[in-house]
Amino acid sequence: MTSVKAYAAQNPTAPVAPWTFERRDPGPFDVQFDILFCGVCHSDLHQIRDEWGNSIYPMVPGHEIVGRVTKVGDKVTKFKVGDLAAVGCLVDSCRHCDNCKDGQEQYCENGSSGTYNSYEQDKKTVTQGGYSSMIVTDEKYVLKVSDKLPLANVAPLLCAGITTYSPLRHWKVGKGHKVAVIGLGGLGHMAVKFAASFGAEVTMLSTSPKKETDAKALGAHKFVLTSDPEQVKSVSNTFDFIIDTVSAPHDYNMVQGMLRTNGIQICVGVPPTPLELYGFSLIGNRRSIAGSMIGGIPETQEMLDYCAEHNIVSDVEVIDISYVNEAYERMLKGDVRYRFVIDMNSLK
Amino acid sequence: MTSVKAYAAQNPTAPVAPWTFERRDPGPFDVQFDILFCGVCHSDLHQIRDEWGNSIYPMVPGHEIVGRVTKVGDKVTKFKVGDLAAVGCLVDSCRHCDNCKDGQEQYCENGSSGTYNSYEQDKKTVTQGGYSSMIVTDEKYVLKVSDKLPLANVAPLLCAGITTYSPLRHWKVGKGHKVAVIGLGGLGHMAVKFAASFGAEVTMLSTSPKKETDAKALGAHKFVLTSDPEQVKSVSNTFDFIIDTVSAPHDYNMVQGMLRTNGIQICVGVPPTPLELYGFSLIGNRRSIAGSMIGGIPETQEMLDYCAEHNIVSDVEVIDISYVNEAYERMLKGDVRYRFVIDMNSLK
Repeated sequence: MTSVKAYAAQNPTAPVAPWTFERRDPGPFDVQFDILFCGVCHSDLHQIRDEWGNSIYPMVPGHEIVGRVTKVGDKVTKFKVGDLAAVGCLVDSCRHCDNCKDGQEQYCENGSSGTYNSYEQDKKTVTQGGYSSMIVTDEKYVLKVSDKLPLANVAPLLCAGITTYSPLRHWKVGKGHKVAVIGLGGLGHMAVKFAASFGAEVTMLSTSPKKETDAKALGAHKFVLTSDPEQVKSVSNTFDFIIDTVSAPHDYNMVQGMLRTNGIQICVGVPPTPLELYGFSLIGNRRSIAGSMIGGIPETQEMLDYCAEHNIVSDVEVIDISYVNEAYERMLKGDVRYRFVIDMNSLK
Repeated sequence: MTSVKAYAAQNPTAPVAPWTFERRDPGPFDVQFDILFCGVCHSDLHQIRDEWGNSIYPMVPGHEIVGRVTKVGDKVTKFKVGDLAAVGCLVDSCRHCDNCKDGQEQYCENGSSGTYNSYEQDKKTVTQGGYSSMIVTDEKYVLKVSDKLPLANVAPLLCAGITTYSPLRHWKVGKGHKVAVIGLGGLGHMAVKFAASFGAEVTMLSTSPKKETDAKALGAHKFVLTSDPEQVKSVSNTFDFIIDTVSAPHDYNMVQGMLRTNGIQICVGVPPTPLELYGFSLIGNRRSIAGSMIGGIPETQEMLDYCAEHNIVSDVEVIDISYVNEAYERMLKGDVRYRFVIDMNSLK
């Protein structure tokens, strides 16, 4: 076992603070790497504060992890010491169910192992995340990272990136489609970039007029202020897809009204309360509301390769780890463009 | 104008009772036919009692209409006097929007004309339905009916039939799919028949153990008692599609839990209150909830032809029109196998 420096939450109300824990020595299929950057995801905060229930403490958050390989097991073939490497939201899964065999490990039928606040496949060893100096993970769940892109900006691709890339690919979004994105945060700004890159006409939906300039700079073609009923009306029955990144309660019936016939509202955020939807919203135009959760390992690699090829990264604000509790407060106010990323050198 | 005998609701609380009104003489493209049978749909009651709002009185309900042609306009090509004919839920639409041009008149972007409790395309002439002696409709919205099938049993195909046929076809349900049906009423019994006919494995979901024998006689392969948590658990993550025909509030999160990854819950009933759904129900397995409303005119004709070819009809209880208010009460208690159909001879 190796002692690892980290920041952890000890309970739902304490700030995240320094903590030390042990990671396993790399087995034959494991990759060990020093963490260089780790993104700060809204779900870190949901879990630290036990807003989704069943949180496990102490909890080292972080699932947007990039770094450089320092050790590999003797059966490892994908990585060698010195390579760049990344870990996203998953560190293992059953590997034998239909979804695992299909590369959809995020939907593992026997329960995948989340990178933190979860259990290894032994169902008893708690996993700990990327607010730490190093990580040891089976190479099957470690992603290759191009050296073409700035590493701090790559980190958020491991969650915010794949979470928006995966549904856009699953529903084959591209040229000729009208796509709207709700919520211009970590997920939303990546949804705009990917949807525009795939050739769709992209509209940013926001309650804040200040977001228009930013959304257009990120690649959105149009902007609709959803606090203005006239603007909402002007886009009724318009969109083929709406990527809904909002994780606070909001008006799903209004959103549905902007979908055209056969349109799909794809939710990637999880509000704490149930969504409320009138049957006629769905039935009147054969509309759907769907959910999508991160992406599988092969698709995450495909997304990273696509980003390297098309020069797509996340817009980030790099912070020291001691700033993370303050960063959470700013994140809650939407005061970040668009993702905080921790420079893990600051943990040393 | 021609005077027409009918039964109508005069307000939301009065029973449906005899009334006389006038229909237009057939224009060059119109078909006039004597109504022989008219099905009794739950939506008749919703609208008579103004449960969906904006009901128009006096209201002659009925949109499962079959009969025999008595007059045709001089430009009519599809029908001649003496032919069988049918009208479903639509009697007109704008004819030039994308959905109309695509044969999806039920989703007409400018508002289709419902068969009753609606307006003609002039947006001022009120439409009146099939609890009447005859109807005059543009031939584009009149369906051809085979003489191979018993006519009383054909009537419910015009709403209950197409409402379940259309989503099963849209989502390409067939061999290799596991399909569940919730609610064994007018819609549900047709969903079971069609899904089984298309080659899917069909499971009836019901809160009533008495329904098992009936469901299997209709073609269901399996039965799950949803009031038994153990039985529900035994089918978690199982179905590719669930056809949800229930128009009363129910537990959507339980239903979602029975869908496998990428599974779709298709709602064809409209509860009066909004559905409540936790985000994780959708997101955890990339599930969807969708709505579907009746079907377009070409697809309704396709469905009627399919039924004639495969000997599929609705199971009905034929009643006199004077019994209709009592029939509503029995329908509300689920005491009908599976559709009341009015013998319109009883109106004479």
